[in-house]
Amino acid sequence: MSVSYRLSEIAAQLGGRVLGNADAIVTQIASLETAQPDQITFLTNSRYLGQLAVTRAGAVILAEQDADLTELPRIISDNPYAYFARVSALLNPLPEVKPGIHHSAIIGAGAIIDATASVAATVVIGEGAKIGAHSVIGEGCSIGANVVIGSRARLYPRVVVYHDCLIGDDLIAHSGVVIGADGFGIAMDRGRWLKIPQIGRVVIGNDVEIGANTTIDRGALDDTVIEDGVKMDNMVMIAHNVRIGAHTAIAGCAGVAGSSTVGRYCLIGGMAGITGHVKIADHVEIAGFTMISKSITEAGSYSGGYPFSKTDDWRRNALHLRRLDELVKRIKKLEKELDCIKSDK
Amino acid sequence: MSVSYRLSEIAAQLGGRVLGNADAIVTQIASLETAQPDQITFLTNSRYLGQLAVTRAGAVILAEQDADLTELPRIISDNPYAYFARVSALLNPLPEVKPGIHHSAIIGAGAIIDATASVAATVVIGEGAKIGAHSVIGEGCSIGANVVIGSRARLYPRVVVYHDCLIGDDLIAHSGVVIGADGFGIAMDRGRWLKIPQIGRVVIGNDVEIGANTTIDRGALDDTVIEDGVKMDNMVMIAHNVRIGAHTAIAGCAGVAGSSTVGRYCLIGGMAGITGHVKIADHVEIAGFTMISKSITEAGSYSGGYPFSKTDDWRRNALHLRRLDELVKRIKKLEKELDCIKSDK
Amino acid sequence: MSVSYRLSEIAAQLGGRVLGNADAIVTQIASLETAQPDQITFLTNSRYLGQLAVTRAGAVILAEQDADLTELPRIISDNPYAYFARVSALLNPLPEVKPGIHHSAIIGAGAIIDATASVAATVVIGEGAKIGAHSVIGEGCSIGANVVIGSRARLYPRVVVYHDCLIGDDLIAHSGVVIGADGFGIAMDRGRWLKIPQIGRVVIGNDVEIGANTTIDRGALDDTVIEDGVKMDNMVMIAHNVRIGAHTAIAGCAGVAGSSTVGRYCLIGGMAGITGHVKIADHVEIAGFTMISKSITEAGSYSGGYPFSKTDDWRRNALHLRRLDELVKRIKKLEKELDCIKSDK
Repeated sequence: MSVSYRLSEIAAQLGGRVLGNADAIVTQIASLETAQPDQITFLTNSRYLGQLAVTRAGAVILAEQDADLTELPRIISDNPYAYFARVSALLNPLPEVKPGIHHSAIIGAGAIIDATASVAATVVIGEGAKIGAHSVIGEGCSIGANVVIGSRARLYPRVVVYHDCLIGDDLIAHSGVVIGADGFGIAMDRGRWLKIPQIGRVVIGNDVEIGANTTIDRGALDDTVIEDGVKMDNMVMIAHNVRIGAHTAIAGCAGVAGSSTVGRYCLIGGMAGITGHVKIADHVEIAGFTMISKSITEAGSYSGGYPFSKTDDWRRNALHLRRLDELVKRIKKLEKELDCIKSDK
Repeated sequence: MSVSYRLSEIAAQLGGRVLGNADAIVTQIASLETAQPDQITFLTNSRYLGQLAVTRAGAVILAEQDADLTELPRIISDNPYAYFARVSALLNPLPEVKPGIHHSAIIGAGAIIDATASVAATVVIGEGAKIGAHSVIGEGCSIGANVVIGSRARLYPRVVVYHDCLIGDDLIAHSGVVIGADGFGIAMDRGRWLKIPQIGRVVIGNDVEIGANTTIDRGALDDTVIEDGVKMDNMVMIAHNVRIGAHTAIAGCAGVAGSSTVGRYCLIGGMAGITGHVKIADHVEIAGFTMISKSITEAGSYSGGYPFSKTDDWRRNALHLRRLDELVKRIKKLEKELDCIKSDK
Repeated sequence: MSVSYRLSEIAAQLGGRVLGNADAIVTQIASLETAQPDQITFLTNSRYLGQLAVTRAGAVILAEQDADLTELPRIISDNPYAYFARVSALLNPLPEVKPGIHHSAIIGAGAIIDATASVAATVVIGEGAKIGAHSVIGEGCSIGANVVIGSRARLYPRVVVYHDCLIGDDLIAHSGVVIGADGFGIAMDRGRWLKIPQIGRVVIGNDVEIGANTTIDRGALDDTVIEDGVKMDNMVMIAHNVRIGAHTAIAGCAGVAGSSTVGRYCLIGGMAGITGHVKIADHVEIAGFTMISKSITEAGSYSGGYPFSKTDDWRRNALHLRRLDELVKRIKKLEKELDCIKSDK
């Protein structure tokens, strides 16, 4: 498969203003460093100005204020990074969906699969499930009974969706994703854990992407909810009864414990963890490796990673952390004594 | 499927004392906030007293000391949370197991599958494996050669159990669980890593639950052991030759490194990590996000997460951590000097 | 399957010097503590000298300087731990590969599968993919279109490799591994995230092992690269456009964020995290639970875990971390005041 576009054709589809040769043809997008003469590149950070000067690219996407930094054919955009995303999607269309159900797929009674959907080999779809128009269910996926998946979903191989979960349009779920497994609900009773049945569902809005091997547990009583436009990286853990607000992005290996609510437009860094039963406001940014142990009521940026150093230095320094309280008391004592001395004079 | 019970019937099965209308009928369990008149709810925390006053529930489970806080039909239990778990199980029975082997399953020579067990589509069961009575092997599971799984196991879709592992009764394993993959054993030899064959097994007791995408590695020489009643959340990592004591509960994304032993009735928080070759006593509680870097010989609660703050504040504070040792020396110097001054007087 | 070797036969194959009865026969390798008279054990750490004295093993592997510590038949090696790995491989040969394609496997048009390779039940192999000699593709694996996998690969059940990825010889990939899923690339555009197509590949060298449920994302524009001899434990997360240098070993649940480069012969501890866009030098050792937030240019050992303590102590100490900057200012003030007092004298 090979596509090519003139700059003028790109701008006609995506907007932006062309400077220089509008008939320049590009077939792929690439970084400033690796782009070839038949490729278009982009400048989103002035750090890379040096690379712009020597790029072999045939065309460039850049911002208005950078319009004159190159004489290459170029498209001017008010958001070059988003424009890059759109051009890349134009030059790299998804493989065409071949509608139909592979003969090795097993379809439960009463399941309704849209005629335009594609169900790959060895898929198992439970009773009463619904798969929307133009959705693609990759090989080996398991879709539980009564699950509803909207239109244009793209489930890569080996995704599991447990029974009764409800998923909107345009879901992308990568391989190994597990949606709707039981939340971790146990009650101690005379020395043994009793299982608390997890009778809620997972409810996912439109336009959500979920990275490889991420797990989203079903609710204990009520539902776990992922709102529209949420984007999750790989190996994210969403516990039962969590709600993730619309357009929040969560980086790899982060986790949100049970019954917590994360606001809209939050950014959660890799390996960050949010404890259970807290509420995070909208527009909160949490740095990677940060433990959020209580609610955050105010938008802003929050951090909590321990700064690394050479192991010998770390050992020397870390020792004191276990005696910090004592240290503070010693400082207080010094202050008092010094006050005495000063007042003595 | 729909079930309904009178309070008197529930108490007859599960114990507890009914107050008010013992003929009240309930069909589902729900939280104080969302319960409907045909549903039963529960009070386990005085924080929710306000919700009790306004709940629309038809009945309530509560403790003896709270018996008079509502006039709704109610069941009094000495452990309302455990009682809630039992009532929920009563009202939400698991779907009936349909015994039999799906025609698309592939069963190895000499494998013994109990006639009451259920083996779903596209399952692969290795040579000589044994599946016990009433066990359910979900679609796409892979059970290795000579694996033994006891009675009433419930393996959700896409669980993998490597060869020779030994599993007791009543296992619940959620999708994506991998039991018995090779432990991480390598030996450096003249600039290259040699693989150390992992010839131990995973041995799992009775009544264990394992969350989605959790991995439990087989032993290098001896076995990795999960004792009775252990409960694990999603994406827990149990390395080779670890032993987890009976009735210990491990929250999501926690990990235990190679050859460590965790005691009985421990509680390990989410994203906590236990280093290799250490021993954790019984009844130890480890907070989430805590790194356990050495053995713990005494029961109790342990923590080690770094407290988060606004990023600007964090940056200012964290800087000093790399110079804490120097800071302590400055305090010592101050103390000495002050002592001098005092003794001078 | 049962194998047995005389010490003389082992030494003939693997080198080393036999002391004592070279005709002693061993059938398995075991630890000092559990070894039986027909088994060989090894001493790699003087900590275990006490166990050597009482071991029931029939033979021992040990270092030159320890040659006289036992009278058991023994093999002297300059690297007993590596020798143990080799002996274990000798005594525990992998099950023989039965070449052929299971009738339930689905093979795409134009895929080339070596006649000596083994493709298990329910495998799906995409169009144009190539599987090399003596490779084993476990049940339920999904190999994308145009993927190339070299010789002697061993993919355990349920591994997914997305389209176009390129893998060298001798790969071991454990169950649940996902290679080549989309990296986490999104661009904000007027309140919505746009997906950035991930058009790079994953390129993996020779002799790489990847633990269960580990994910390695494909590159955004260029490739994600895993060099020769890299060893990864379970649930490791390698983000897009990362490069991992040859012979680096990464323990469980560690992660490397986008576009970072890790050098050769690095050791990365469990749950450690490396932020995006940094460069780690060769021969760097990173302790478990350490957040690497900037580049490391010098070989050596680095740490950053927060030391745990009893929760009450931790609470008292951790409080001060949020006011460390203020504390340092108080110390500065004390120093100044003391200086004044001293100069006053």
